[in-house]
Amino acid sequence: MNDAAIGIFDSGMGGLTVMRALMALLPNERFLYLGDTARLPYGTKSADTVARYAVQAAGALVKRRIKLLVVACNTASGVALPALQEEFAPLPVIDVIGPGAEAALAASPKGPIAVIATEGTVKAGAYVRAIHAHAPDVEVMQQACPLFVPLAEEGLIDGVIAELVAHRYLDELLARKPHALVLGCTHYPALKGTIGKAAGLDVTLVDSAETTAARVDKALGERNLRRGDASAPDHRFLVTDAPERFARVGEIFLGRKIEPDAIELVDLQ
Amino acid sequence: MNDAAIGIFDSGMGGLTVMRALMALLPNERFLYLGDTARLPYGTKSADTVARYAVQAAGALVKRRIKLLVVACNTASGVALPALQEEFAPLPVIDVIGPGAEAALAASPKGPIAVIATEGTVKAGAYVRAIHAHAPDVEVMQQACPLFVPLAEEGLIDGVIAELVAHRYLDELLARKPHALVLGCTHYPALKGTIGKAAGLDVTLVDSAETTAARVDKALGERNLRRGDASAPDHRFLVTDAPERFARVGEIFLGRKIEPDAIELVDLQ
Repeated sequence: MNDAAIGIFDSGMGGLTVMRALMALLPNERFLYLGDTARLPYGTKSADTVARYAVQAAGALVKRRIKLLVVACNTASGVALPALQEEFAPLPVIDVIGPGAEAALAASPKGPIAVIATEGTVKAGAYVRAIHAHAPDVEVMQQACPLFVPLAEEGLIDGVIAELVAHRYLDELLARKPHALVLGCTHYPALKGTIGKAAGLDVTLVDSAETTAARVDKALGERNLRRGDASAPDHRFLVTDAPERFARVGEIFLGRKIEPDAIELVDLQ
Repeated sequence: MNDAAIGIFDSGMGGLTVMRALMALLPNERFLYLGDTARLPYGTKSADTVARYAVQAAGALVKRRIKLLVVACNTASGVALPALQEEFAPLPVIDVIGPGAEAALAASPKGPIAVIATEGTVKAGAYVRAIHAHAPDVEVMQQACPLFVPLAEEGLIDGVIAELVAHRYLDELLARKPHALVLGCTHYPALKGTIGKAAGLDVTLVDSAETTAARVDKALGERNLRRGDASAPDHRFLVTDAPERFARVGEIFLGRKIEPDAIELVDLQ
């Protein structure tokens, strides 16, 4: 089992920012990434629909033999984690919201903490619950930023349009003086420069990718699941639609080239 | 059959601009609208996937007994019209691209004609083909405007952000001096003010909604399918996800209130 890949699941390409952090921390591991590009975005969909899609996507990864599953989509993490853990037990399932909440508290132990995310994540209140589970008295404020995902997917990550959209979403939130700002959607790190500029120097930006990678590292160690083989690992990508677009736009998020022949089109229905 | 509804199908809410034109022209008819909100947007998806989704969606409308089908989604019109006509014959199926092309030629018989649309519609080249079928020598230029859909769905239809995005997409196209600009996505009429401001007074904006409504009117007449009953017609809406969001955001496109109890959640898979 140690040679099996680590499965990573996202609604589209945003989860590649998590894969990027995982590859940096675990250069010896193989990764199998699934992006449900036919049905993205998840962030504007209902909890029931997202949970159903998440179980289908995870099932496709499990069928190809994975040793651990990373839910690299905040919206799916927020509404589908218990369903995934139950359905695929004893497979270890690691989400991005728990690690993101811990990173936020490390950056701002007494708060206030601001969370920006999709409509679905905000509505599910998953970050608020995860932060309050550790620190019930910390003030948490939320803001949905629906245009950040299409801006990132268009590669419009800086410049005046991105800055105006950032101010539109953030100014009211920032007036309440948070100490930390959680990038609660895996697309948002692509806009980190613009968000940081709008937020100013007094606010620490929290990206759950690195904390999630650290948690995966720990889980592999505890379960003796590290890959022993020293040969260069191969990485594969499954998408439910438009593989060429995935290869082209995915580079923005993964930070390296994605070879078209590493991408396979799959049907989840 | 005359008392049956006219079915309207779209990937989400944009098709409500077509329903609005239909209701204005045919106030006595009943309409049954289906928005595939669980799987929107169609515009960034591949032709095969969109065609499969379109047949499923049309099937759900046919099952509820409709007398005519309007494909109120440019992307689906561009790739799925032959499949829909074959699958559901002899049901009359009317798309938005044919009427849009005719309206463009009426506004600018000698061209050049500019078409703005989703990535899928541009890639399928459906407007270019439809215009050249009538006027092979007219110059047609195309531009995909992927951010217009999320801007419209966010209600960000005017103001400086919408204007900057419009200039980003249109300036190069407008430098080539088109006489007509086709709004080749049913979401775009919501941004008509902003697009018109960017395009200037020398360019006629063409919206296929009214031409489509005229073609439906003609088809009903030819087939003796007009509703004779003079009682006020009822209108129903089927959505595949998030009915509350549909009721709230749909008003922008339909131009009137959508009662929550007229909306029903359906599963197409």
